[in-house]
Amino acid sequence: MPKILVLNGPNLNLLGIRQPDVYGKTTLSDVETLCRSVCADLGFDLGFKQSNHEGELIEWLHAAPGSSDGVVFNAGGYTHTSIALGDAIASIDVPVVEVHLSNIHAREEFRHVSCLAANCLGQIAGFGAVSYELGIRAVAKHLGH
Amino acid sequence: MPKILVLNGPNLNLLGIRQPDVYGKTTLSDVETLCRSVCADLGFDLGFKQSNHEGELIEWLHAAPGSSDGVVFNAGGYTHTSIALGDAIASIDVPVVEVHLSNIHAREEFRHVSCLAANCLGQIAGFGAVSYELGIRAVAKHLGH
Amino acid sequence: MPKILVLNGPNLNLLGIRQPDVYGKTTLSDVETLCRSVCADLGFDLGFKQSNHEGELIEWLHAAPGSSDGVVFNAGGYTHTSIALGDAIASIDVPVVEVHLSNIHAREEFRHVSCLAANCLGQIAGFGAVSYELGIRAVAKHLGH
Amino acid sequence: MPKILVLNGPNLNLLGIRQPDVYGKTTLSDVETLCRSVCADLGFDLGFKQSNHEGELIEWLHAAPGSSDGVVFNAGGYTHTSIALGDAIASIDVPVVEVHLSNIHAREEFRHVSCLAANCLGQIAGFGAVSYELGIRAVAKHLGH
Amino acid sequence: MPKILVLNGPNLNLLGIRQPDVYGKTTLSDVETLCRSVCADLGFDLGFKQSNHEGELIEWLHAAPGSSDGVVFNAGGYTHTSIALGDAIASIDVPVVEVHLSNIHAREEFRHVSCLAANCLGQIAGFGAVSYELGIRAVAKHLGH
Amino acid sequence: MPKILVLNGPNLNLLGIRQPDVYGKTTLSDVETLCRSVCADLGFDLGFKQSNHEGELIEWLHAAPGSSDGVVFNAGGYTHTSIALGDAIASIDVPVVEVHLSNIHAREEFRHVSCLAANCLGQIAGFGAVSYELGIRAVAKHLGH
Amino acid sequence: MPKILVLNGPNLNLLGIRQPDVYGKTTLSDVETLCRSVCADLGFDLGFKQSNHEGELIEWLHAAPGSSDGVVFNAGGYTHTSIALGDAIASIDVPVVEVHLSNIHAREEFRHVSCLAANCLGQIAGFGAVSYELGIRAVAKHLGH
Amino acid sequence: MPKILVLNGPNLNLLGIRQPDVYGKTTLSDVETLCRSVCADLGFDLGFKQSNHEGELIEWLHAAPGSSDGVVFNAGGYTHTSIALGDAIASIDVPVVEVHLSNIHAREEFRHVSCLAANCLGQIAGFGAVSYELGIRAVAKHLGH
Amino acid sequence: MPKILVLNGPNLNLLGIRQPDVYGKTTLSDVETLCRSVCADLGFDLGFKQSNHEGELIEWLHAAPGSSDGVVFNAGGYTHTSIALGDAIASIDVPVVEVHLSNIHAREEFRHVSCLAANCLGQIAGFGAVSYELGIRAVAKHLGH
Amino acid sequence: MPKILVLNGPNLNLLGIRQPDVYGKTTLSDVETLCRSVCADLGFDLGFKQSNHEGELIEWLHAAPGSSDGVVFNAGGYTHTSIALGDAIASIDVPVVEVHLSNIHAREEFRHVSCLAANCLGQIAGFGAVSYELGIRAVAKHLGH
Amino acid sequence: MPKILVLNGPNLNLLGIRQPDVYGKTTLSDVETLCRSVCADLGFDLGFKQSNHEGELIEWLHAAPGSSDGVVFNAGGYTHTSIALGDAIASIDVPVVEVHLSNIHAREEFRHVSCLAANCLGQIAGFGAVSYELGIRAVAKHLGH
Amino acid sequence: MPKILVLNGPNLNLLGIRQPDVYGKTTLSDVETLCRSVCADLGFDLGFKQSNHEGELIEWLHAAPGSSDGVVFNAGGYTHTSIALGDAIASIDVPVVEVHLSNIHAREEFRHVSCLAANCLGQIAGFGAVSYELGIRAVAKHLGH
Repeated sequence: MPKILVLNGPNLNLLGIRQPDVYGKTTLSDVETLCRSVCADLGFDLGFKQSNHEGELIEWLHAAPGSSDGVVFNAGGYTHTSIALGDAIASIDVPVVEVHLSNIHAREEFRHVSCLAANCLGQIAGFGAVSYELGIRAVAKHLGH
Repeated sequence: MPKILVLNGPNLNLLGIRQPDVYGKTTLSDVETLCRSVCADLGFDLGFKQSNHEGELIEWLHAAPGSSDGVVFNAGGYTHTSIALGDAIASIDVPVVEVHLSNIHAREEFRHVSCLAANCLGQIAGFGAVSYELGIRAVAKHLGH
Repeated sequence: MPKILVLNGPNLNLLGIRQPDVYGKTTLSDVETLCRSVCADLGFDLGFKQSNHEGELIEWLHAAPGSSDGVVFNAGGYTHTSIALGDAIASIDVPVVEVHLSNIHAREEFRHVSCLAANCLGQIAGFGAVSYELGIRAVAKHLGH
Repeated sequence: MPKILVLNGPNLNLLGIRQPDVYGKTTLSDVETLCRSVCADLGFDLGFKQSNHEGELIEWLHAAPGSSDGVVFNAGGYTHTSIALGDAIASIDVPVVEVHLSNIHAREEFRHVSCLAANCLGQIAGFGAVSYELGIRAVAKHLGH
Repeated sequence: MPKILVLNGPNLNLLGIRQPDVYGKTTLSDVETLCRSVCADLGFDLGFKQSNHEGELIEWLHAAPGSSDGVVFNAGGYTHTSIALGDAIASIDVPVVEVHLSNIHAREEFRHVSCLAANCLGQIAGFGAVSYELGIRAVAKHLGH
Repeated sequence: MPKILVLNGPNLNLLGIRQPDVYGKTTLSDVETLCRSVCADLGFDLGFKQSNHEGELIEWLHAAPGSSDGVVFNAGGYTHTSIALGDAIASIDVPVVEVHLSNIHAREEFRHVSCLAANCLGQIAGFGAVSYELGIRAVAKHLGH
Repeated sequence: MPKILVLNGPNLNLLGIRQPDVYGKTTLSDVETLCRSVCADLGFDLGFKQSNHEGELIEWLHAAPGSSDGVVFNAGGYTHTSIALGDAIASIDVPVVEVHLSNIHAREEFRHVSCLAANCLGQIAGFGAVSYELGIRAVAKHLGH
Repeated sequence: MPKILVLNGPNLNLLGIRQPDVYGKTTLSDVETLCRSVCADLGFDLGFKQSNHEGELIEWLHAAPGSSDGVVFNAGGYTHTSIALGDAIASIDVPVVEVHLSNIHAREEFRHVSCLAANCLGQIAGFGAVSYELGIRAVAKHLGH
Repeated sequence: MPKILVLNGPNLNLLGIRQPDVYGKTTLSDVETLCRSVCADLGFDLGFKQSNHEGELIEWLHAAPGSSDGVVFNAGGYTHTSIALGDAIASIDVPVVEVHLSNIHAREEFRHVSCLAANCLGQIAGFGAVSYELGIRAVAKHLGH
Repeated sequence: MPKILVLNGPNLNLLGIRQPDVYGKTTLSDVETLCRSVCADLGFDLGFKQSNHEGELIEWLHAAPGSSDGVVFNAGGYTHTSIALGDAIASIDVPVVEVHLSNIHAREEFRHVSCLAANCLGQIAGFGAVSYELGIRAVAKHLGH
Repeated sequence: MPKILVLNGPNLNLLGIRQPDVYGKTTLSDVETLCRSVCADLGFDLGFKQSNHEGELIEWLHAAPGSSDGVVFNAGGYTHTSIALGDAIASIDVPVVEVHLSNIHAREEFRHVSCLAANCLGQIAGFGAVSYELGIRAVAKHLGH
Repeated sequence: MPKILVLNGPNLNLLGIRQPDVYGKTTLSDVETLCRSVCADLGFDLGFKQSNHEGELIEWLHAAPGSSDGVVFNAGGYTHTSIALGDAIASIDVPVVEVHLSNIHAREEFRHVSCLAANCLGQIAGFGAVSYELGIRAVAKHLGH
């Protein structure tokens, strides 16, 4: 069965745990459950990982070819600063979709910039956990599902 | 039945007609058909319009409250220059999702900026006609469908 | 009797109708009533128009010479982007006063810029409907009333 | 009787005295006479002061609460550079209206910026001495007169 | 007989009518006569239109393929702001030459920028009505006349 | 006994008097009391002054050598604009520590810049009156106390 | 006993070891000793850590709630580039004080910017190891000690 | 017989000789032949020169008054950097038209700027050798031919 | 006898007194002696003043017409920030020459800008006390001496 | 025998493995072989390492003094963003030469900037694996070999 | 007898010849006469040269050491663009004073910048031919005359 | 035998002659000797030239095809300003390597920019005369030696 890898960057491990009044109660585990369900519906296996380490995220992207058919990537704060992550995406031949929980284009100006976008299929931002679902669907469509 | 309004801005009437070798063969009529099918699946009526006139797009947004429950908006070239369209979105209480056929963040720098984003639910870019489908799904989820 | 033309740009037709809790309950019709009363006091006829179309606003400016003695212009979002409207003001020999409901210099930085100012008599911003009254008085004084 | 304080910043003491061929023959004393007449009509006492010292202007603003009900302020060249004056306005609970003799938005680009605007009710620019009259009227309206 | 379409943008309808002491006495009608004469000499039919509406100009460009063999376009103030017009030119396969009455590169800095240039054959600026004649000749040469 | 001079710039005389709900109830007199107590503990005399006049602050800095052993300086709004104050600090051989009540680096971007920093020992910002205490301790440590 | 966590970022492990003629002879171990002594005086336990890994620093911040009552953070070179560290501070409900050995505002312009400041209590820079002592005192005061 | 001087700047001597597959086979000699033919038709003598030396181009401009009635100038790479050439044009009372083979406004951003434009009659760019022909016609028209 | 007024801005009272090893031993009194001697040679009376107060410098400029025939002005740090001083120079009809001890164009970039230059006869910088002598000579020549 | 350490940053582990049609077939292992051969010729031992982790690269630099006599460093994408790596180079007394496979100055503008350069001996870019050879030779020459 | 070399850059050969109504009637030959007279008074020989060639000016600067004791340099338009001329001044140990006929700081913004200033003794601008006289005096004073 | 041409730009003729204490004692003649020796080792003839004239450097580049197989180019100060030299490199089909004596990326910001880089094989900076040796080796490797 084809596989989609969902990668999560820095601070996303705290999602829904700290300050639920601010960020809502959806945890990263809830997001994983949602992704698993969407993938199942679409006929995909799911890989789901989180790291606060830029280097580890780079290496997970490196490992995607051969093991995954597409990547949905929420790079968190690294989105706006990591040329290295952008280069990692460019160096693999697996389609990558960039997702964001919040609408980064409606926030501080430094969050409007993405170092990843030039090498991604597309970008989805602003729909909370639903951004992941839409990202998975976008990858699936791209792969012809 | 609730209704989603899909608005299309300047030049989108030519989609798939001129230069199919460059932009693909999907016409705006094909996009409408896709949107209609997705809406039907999700239990929504569809409104689908295109205009090359900024003022007409503003007025269609003004008319949305009361007649539509959500808007999916591809503002084309006006996305990057129209403060007036951004103000129009701010002045209505209907959720608006910004969609783009191409990944605007991977193109010329002047296309990275959106004058609409500050007042939209979110942004989806880069998936061709599929951006519309995802936009409709995003609105539907937001409305609790 | 001399005449003052009050022109209103995009989105101002919604004034006081949508979201009265945010923008107040004064409608554009109320603004017109106020303007009519001020003009009457000062011995002027009033023309009062609103359009969401940049081209229509340009044409109303073109038509001012001969039919109006002064213009009070709230160009809304076009204020910050329309070089064409600024050129239109430059091409007529009728005095134009720029007015704004809100204090645009206390809002987002992109609203501090006016493409009209270089060709206007002056600018009045921040006093709600009273900005219009002051604009009419400024035109009247300029015309020696 | 309520009172409006009109403050004048650097170089305004020379108004109409030096180079009348350039700046016109209206002196600051003439402006004061005009303001006194407008205030009288509207039922206000008038305070009218000029200083070339940023610190003195700050202190006059500090003294406004309790002694004046509104301020009309032409800060001259300090408008574009004095964060301290902007902070002074922010620190008092008396409404302040910013006025300018010339249309600062039609002059050199460094004059388009106001360090005061963020904390003022509004801005009036370009009508010569009439800017003061309009400023007084704006304060009066704001105070419900 | 092949045909050249000359399009004129905002405010050009006033050419030579208002303020002849400033802009000269050549009217847009005179420009049309000149263009017609040049086209006749070169063996072309002429289409000649003016609009103050961005959307209408977009649509006239859309209609050019099939009806015209080349376009000479003076977009006036829209030149510097309209990404949508630039996109419209990109979407048609008819050669477009950008013309300007004045030398835009010798005027205010915001007039140095053209949103159309990236998709045009070339640019001619500064020769008054003669810019149009040169534009027609440029199109004719490009078409092999 | 060695002496520390605490200088306060524009608007700080209003501290805790106006708008206590916004800025807290600590007055400048309370700050002085706190500073006096900290100095006493550390074996220093205290000088404590406030001025809204840039020139007076410059002159107090000029007078510091010989009369004071260190300076703690809250320059208020002049921090961000006064090259002259920065030059004054450079021209004396007494150590100066820059303090701010609020965290200027978490506020508007124009408050991130300090014209004084290049010539100061260091900067302390964000701790309210405690910033002064820390500033005095920093000077004391620097002087070997 | 309440606890303060002192975090040190990249390159600080070399403090006082390499190039003592340039950076002084105070080692990070000396800094820790100083911090321990200050904490003891103020009635706090001390945690003291150093990492060259952005991800590890993020995770230590994540672990602070529950185990520490306040954080003193010298993020070294990451201060100026790490949006992810800024987000990590925003996501925890423990007060964080930013400290720097040197006066970053008196060095190269790229060191004036802090990606952490928006979410920190305050910033202390320029006093060498004393910056840490002042940071601990600032946290202690904030916690009511 | 009146005379037009065509000046060519750096690298234009290589036109059509090196890399004909890239730049086409038209040589500078061919351009001269074309110019000579156009001048003959219009009743002008032709001067035609090329130099890679900024100083020599300046001196040829200096020599134009008295010997030539108009100048057509392709300054090549010096267009974008030479204030001295712009000053040279300003210092002579012979009309100068700026021409470019390629559409400089459709190339790299540094090529959009012309240091010559402020002092030239107009600019023609993008038509290959035809730009020269149009430039000669523009000069001729300006001289009343 | 005609009179030249030499004005000195902030911090210049310290010249040659503090840190003679850095700034040299020439005091402001020595500069005055030099100026007096040069003026005597050229047949001028000398006025010589220093102030750290922007407002006082403005007022001394205001007082120049009638009492002085020319002004030599070293505005120190206010040179780079005071639009009000620039306006004061513009408002008097006495020629003003701007002088600087150091070569401001060879120092930090913020010192390259002069807010005074637009309204001054010229600028002399970099020759220490000799800048004043040259400034006096420039004024004298301008006055026809 | 003296030793040269060659450090490789993010994504370089993929060199020549993925997309050989784009990046060539030279693997990082081939680069190491080349470096080993050049070092042998010049009488150096070789250390050769790669990491995707910024922190690990910092620590390898920290470890260089004592174990290596010079460093050749290809920091990949971290070159343009890592102030921390630049600081690490500054903190060691071993000469570092910056190398790049591609000519970074001929690519996207964000790749022209190097955060490392200020503290490196020099920079070599654009020669593929040969950049490494040249870097080793540069270090060797610097060490007097 | 010591010698001062006066160098003149591009276009200065036209001084006073072309457009005397604009630039005055003083020719470069008149300037030379003035310089010769001033030098004679001060006990200097004079060298006086003009070139429109950047390379020739560089070489004249190279030749100054040994043959001249000081240089007065009006680099004309090269002032604002020639890093090479700035480097030439840096490479010789003869004092150079930068002079300008007009007040470059009161003209277009691109003329405010000097590529020479960092390596010159000082700058004198705005006094016409008198700028040269003052430049010679400045050099003479610097040399102890 | 194949040939490498080494070109040297402005001021390099002074290398090692003036101010040897600053720039070292290596003369351009020494550099030539080094280059000759390296070329001999690698089986190349050497051409070695220096000019202070931009136009002459352009012409030497033009002459390279046919007479030289590769170019090593130190353009000195022209590196940062000469678009014409960059165009000259683009117009020849001989590989060019850019070299610099100093590490231009560690100097003033205006020296970080190269107008040549876009059209060069690569860049080598910071190794003194050794930069030339490495440049020759880079060309040789590129040519398969």
